[in-house]
Amino acid sequence: MRIGVLGTGMVGQAIGSRLVALGHEVQMGSREAGNENARAWVERAGHGASEGSFEDAAAFGEMAFNCNAGAHSLAALEQAGRDNLAGKVLVDVANVLDSSEGAPPTVGVGTNDSLGEQIQRAFPDTKVVKSLNTMNCEVMVDPSRVPGDHSVFVCGDDVDAKDQVKALLESFGWPSGRILDLGGIRSARGAELYVALWLALWGAVGTGDFNIAVVRSS
Amino acid sequence: MRIGVLGTGMVGQAIGSRLVALGHEVQMGSREAGNENARAWVERAGHGASEGSFEDAAAFGEMAFNCNAGAHSLAALEQAGRDNLAGKVLVDVANVLDSSEGAPPTVGVGTNDSLGEQIQRAFPDTKVVKSLNTMNCEVMVDPSRVPGDHSVFVCGDDVDAKDQVKALLESFGWPSGRILDLGGIRSARGAELYVALWLALWGAVGTGDFNIAVVRSS
Repeated sequence: MRIGVLGTGMVGQAIGSRLVALGHEVQMGSREAGNENARAWVERAGHGASEGSFEDAAAFGEMAFNCNAGAHSLAALEQAGRDNLAGKVLVDVANVLDSSEGAPPTVGVGTNDSLGEQIQRAFPDTKVVKSLNTMNCEVMVDPSRVPGDHSVFVCGDDVDAKDQVKALLESFGWPSGRILDLGGIRSARGAELYVALWLALWGAVGTGDFNIAVVRSS
Repeated sequence: MRIGVLGTGMVGQAIGSRLVALGHEVQMGSREAGNENARAWVERAGHGASEGSFEDAAAFGEMAFNCNAGAHSLAALEQAGRDNLAGKVLVDVANVLDSSEGAPPTVGVGTNDSLGEQIQRAFPDTKVVKSLNTMNCEVMVDPSRVPGDHSVFVCGDDVDAKDQVKALLESFGWPSGRILDLGGIRSARGAELYVALWLALWGAVGTGDFNIAVVRSS
């Protein structure tokens, strides 16, 4: 599949590399084609990897990942272009974090909205699926780094889009029973607000190689 | 130990009954002494259970639990009285939920504060420990309802107070390794904002008998 990865940071690189390793053609997008991080990533990722502007990568992909910082995501997606994203699945991996009060940062969208919903409202012709934002990027693409039946969430209004994302998550190594569908894109609030607990847990646990397992009575 | 349980709802009743069963003397407090729920609870809980006003219960307890609805907690604690709570450990189990937008409710305190912090600010002479707010009240007092190494959190500025609460949690059945200390009372933000995910999970999982286990690489 052709996939656009928007954002050149650690998250974009981890997801982009995993997708290339799985045989997909991946174009990493940034504000301007020729971005230094993106070019270095293309060299490392090898065959199947390319880079370009946000517009280029969004047009290239049959599907796209938003791996930008949360606070810049809407602007980056505007630049990627409504038409280039129309009709496509957009996996939103971003968190809006506000460090203005010091560490740990606070979640920046408030409690009665989410970045996932904001993106879905701004791009009504795109099928937004919130996923993977609840863990370290290394765990996202290699869940075996953490033992146990830990969980990943998907949130979105389009059932087919969520099925496509679930299939991709399975190819990353997530067993289907550990992919929890939280419902419509409104449920992205839960996945995004959890990040406040995730940040506190990171401090308590002492490593980013952790996750939560949802356990229930049988 | 003498313990005041402030609030007569399901959470107060579950915690009160468990404490009585463990041999503590428990007074359930409500706006006015003689509350119908509280009187029925005293009858069920038996020896060691009593009821009274918020003031009565706070004065009675060497320790207190805030089991009121989040939105009413500060008013209830004001009524309980600063002097009656001074120098004591107050375990804050409450969540502020806002149902004005329909179901599921949203978390009502915003992302850069928490009820735990609000209570600690309003009662600087009381040792506030946020705990147990991340699960169904039946799981709070009987973690064996859910299989696996699932977790409970404690947040608070006073280390000795957290140690007292940890000991009480162990007596409820929580093994010490599953009691995660998230740090100061500021970390109550994480525990409270997680409730947005908990609400979404409840819908996805289909039972309140669930919890999260924090798993990490060894």
